[in-house]
Amino acid sequence: MLVGELAQRYLPALDDYMRTVVDSLPDSAEFLTMLRYPLGWVQADGTQYSGSTGKRIRPLLLLLCAEAAGGDWRAALPAAAAVEFLHNFSLIHDDIQDDSPTRHNRPTVWKVWNVPQAINAGDSMFALAYEALLRLRETSTPEITLSCWSLFNHTNFELTRGQHLDMRFENQPIVALDEYLSMVSGKTAALLAASAQMGALIGSRDAEIAVHYGDFGLNLGIAFQIHDDILGIWGDTSMTGKSASTDILARKKSLPILYGLERSVELRAVYQRQRDDHADVEDAMTALNAVGALDYARTAETDYYERALQSVRRSGTEPSQSFDNLLALTHVLFQRAS
Amino acid sequence: MLVGELAQRYLPALDDYMRTVVDSLPDSAEFLTMLRYPLGWVQADGTQYSGSTGKRIRPLLLLLCAEAAGGDWRAALPAAAAVEFLHNFSLIHDDIQDDSPTRHNRPTVWKVWNVPQAINAGDSMFALAYEALLRLRETSTPEITLSCWSLFNHTNFELTRGQHLDMRFENQPIVALDEYLSMVSGKTAALLAASAQMGALIGSRDAEIAVHYGDFGLNLGIAFQIHDDILGIWGDTSMTGKSASTDILARKKSLPILYGLERSVELRAVYQRQRDDHADVEDAMTALNAVGALDYARTAETDYYERALQSVRRSGTEPSQSFDNLLALTHVLFQRAS
Repeated sequence: MLVGELAQRYLPALDDYMRTVVDSLPDSAEFLTMLRYPLGWVQADGTQYSGSTGKRIRPLLLLLCAEAAGGDWRAALPAAAAVEFLHNFSLIHDDIQDDSPTRHNRPTVWKVWNVPQAINAGDSMFALAYEALLRLRETSTPEITLSCWSLFNHTNFELTRGQHLDMRFENQPIVALDEYLSMVSGKTAALLAASAQMGALIGSRDAEIAVHYGDFGLNLGIAFQIHDDILGIWGDTSMTGKSASTDILARKKSLPILYGLERSVELRAVYQRQRDDHADVEDAMTALNAVGALDYARTAETDYYERALQSVRRSGTEPSQSFDNLLALTHVLFQRAS
Repeated sequence: MLVGELAQRYLPALDDYMRTVVDSLPDSAEFLTMLRYPLGWVQADGTQYSGSTGKRIRPLLLLLCAEAAGGDWRAALPAAAAVEFLHNFSLIHDDIQDDSPTRHNRPTVWKVWNVPQAINAGDSMFALAYEALLRLRETSTPEITLSCWSLFNHTNFELTRGQHLDMRFENQPIVALDEYLSMVSGKTAALLAASAQMGALIGSRDAEIAVHYGDFGLNLGIAFQIHDDILGIWGDTSMTGKSASTDILARKKSLPILYGLERSVELRAVYQRQRDDHADVEDAMTALNAVGALDYARTAETDYYERALQSVRRSGTEPSQSFDNLLALTHVLFQRAS
């Protein structure tokens, strides 16, 4: 099944489910508009919006894992909604923290309203994620529901711990590769890990099977981030939609950069001079290529990708159409544009 | 039992419990320091702090309700820790939203670190609250644990809905009294309601009894806020630690003010002229006194206080030492300084 078909199969039901959760909340003034807006359902004035709603990669992964692990994906909808709400919570707060004015070609929440209201809207979206997750008690056992709650809490700490490190790294001259991996495991990979693990737990009701899926999601997430790091330097601008030099100009500490900083006096010099013109970019690229940073990063990406596939195979899940669909999605994640 | 004795009986166990939850988290760099600092356990550099930790009113109320409703207060410690973590989460974000540089005579989290890190620390404290609450499964049944989760979600929406309204009111020339009550029900009263209801549910394992305690907490919270509103205008500066005129200078829309704005042309004139000198304060006080705003607010406070007492009596809880302790705490809340 192609990924477009997968999306068509699962995402309308997910969208309906998510809307039901939001519609059940008490409203006051524009309160719920601030939640519906970043979810891509309405414009800032509350009227219908028909643009992009985001790719819903995490809930799609979760639903596929539920099915690949042998369950009915519909029983996993509460958890799928929860991870998507949680992802959107983190985007609302990230955009404030990064001072980003646009997302998906629209003004960010803080830009439309203001920073205090956007902090609050993010907090509310966080609570919304937990509210969606709680509804698992309608489709699953109390034990599975409580186990998913525990996984979800763990993920939230990992997200905030990763975000904490990421923000610190900006002001830290040297970042070790293991610090980087620790940050990425939290900021990017934890939510993919939780999506896969919760999906498999709901689908199989077997904690051991679910752990293998969790490892799958974690390694997939790390590979995913490294892939993104590579695109941030060597990506095709027409595909990624941002200039490949942005990461260098912003002095981002991505994996290839950290590898380069460890090995190249020239790159360290560029990063220390703290100017931001295009000579910097050229010099940095030359330095990165001289030490083979691209090969290093590609090897690392492939390594984590292979580990991900090994983990999911190790789960002992029977081959099935759903399992193939999961692998198809996994594969496509590595050709994504942004 | 005096309130000081109550605090000595319950709060050390609460503190130990809260520390255990935080200590169990994965750490990275200063990550956990940013949680321990606002909880009053450490200084900004991570070394021990021996100043005030806050009054812990909400968890104290919760533990007393658990006992008054017939249970062992120790079984309610996870929920008590959860409401205190949640309260601290909301303070961290409130201080950013209000641009407040100090709390409990110390720099606020955003002031010590920065706004992006403080947003993240608040998010992490939010997750911490859910992690503490989940531990109810060790002391209570899965059903009670899931019911408390549901109450907690509801509270979080109410908190963010109330905060949303409170921030809107600043830029809204007219606020109706029912809008004010809707805001206060969320921002101040919801967490007291949840504290009382969760405590009683854990203590009695009876949802109906717990609902009466929830009403008790809600009405208590509204009375509590009106009391605060009165102190913000007519309070004894030496007791409240802030100038009584602050609320008028800040054009705050508290209950007595809203009552005055509805009835006094003079007060509307002061609020429209948007200057902030002490002539304003004098004129505003004169206008408020002319329409009897203090009497109105006092009557409203007493009314909600009486409703709170009626609710808890309606619960059918047997008279006991614990029940008397709960009433003693309730009474003292209305003599508090700030």
